[in-house]
Amino acid sequence: MPDMTEKDTQATASWSFASREDRRAIENGLDFAPKFDADGLIPAIATDHETGQVLMVAYMNEESLRQTLALGEAVYFSRSRSKLWHKGATSGHVQVVREILTDCDQDALVLRVEQRGPGCCHNGFRSCFYRRVQFPAKEAAPSMEQTLSPVFDVEKVYGGG
Amino acid sequence: MPDMTEKDTQATASWSFASREDRRAIENGLDFAPKFDADGLIPAIATDHETGQVLMVAYMNEESLRQTLALGEAVYFSRSRSKLWHKGATSGHVQVVREILTDCDQDALVLRVEQRGPGCCHNGFRSCFYRRVQFPAKEAAPSMEQTLSPVFDVEKVYGGG
Repeated sequence: MPDMTEKDTQATASWSFASREDRRAIENGLDFAPKFDADGLIPAIATDHETGQVLMVAYMNEESLRQTLALGEAVYFSRSRSKLWHKGATSGHVQVVREILTDCDQDALVLRVEQRGPGCCHNGFRSCFYRRVQFPAKEAAPSMEQTLSPVFDVEKVYGGG
Repeated sequence: MPDMTEKDTQATASWSFASREDRRAIENGLDFAPKFDADGLIPAIATDHETGQVLMVAYMNEESLRQTLALGEAVYFSRSRSKLWHKGATSGHVQVVREILTDCDQDALVLRVEQRGPGCCHNGFRSCFYRRVQFPAKEAAPSMEQTLSPVFDVEKVYGGG
């Protein structure tokens, strides 16, 4: 997981996302009708707005998506801690959201972000995707190789307590 | 959703993915230990291997991931149809997998692919992410704007049946 800092955030306005009754409108319309799954979550993929590098995959509930839209910085929902998570609020590694895209079914989001600080991963990497699977794998279990080097000191940023 | 063509695929070899007992090994090791959720699925984000553009988000079960690794082309698990789905098998719009990355928790995959044909989306777009959400949204529900133009004729590719 990426770093798990968060801070209290304000409740957002009371407008509603669009209805998901009309499949044609969901796919071809311009009303934003995101699909939250049985747990109330939608996957959000954060990518570097300049390079396209996938930085991390996290989840949003309705409130975290509202706050992201209002704040212009990524606010996720931490599944492990069951709470809102304003990414980078204490580490300073916030994600300034330049663009939010959704797909045909509106059941996934892409956040094109400006990653503040050296990286988003709690293990000290620019991206959480720092390993590549070796394949083809036909006869044996695939191994991996590391593709990124750490870019910050985890202890200094998250440690000390 | 992207196009839903599939074909019969062969059962893959009997090796196992690595154990997920050791959290440290999951995050820092080089054994591939993907996490499948309660439904047996892991999200897989397909990106253009050259531009980084996010093409689609889909899901894999263990068998579809094994087949992807063995075949070198993306094989997903269709949640709506509850079956393996060799992307592009009938449309020709297969995704040749150049690289598979996983994140710190190993609960998400990024497939860097060579998208054959003009695009991956069943609505005729290069990418399923053809709409951008307009924000900031503080007082009113956000609307969207279309960011891509169709690149192929849906009827010609998927129609006729």
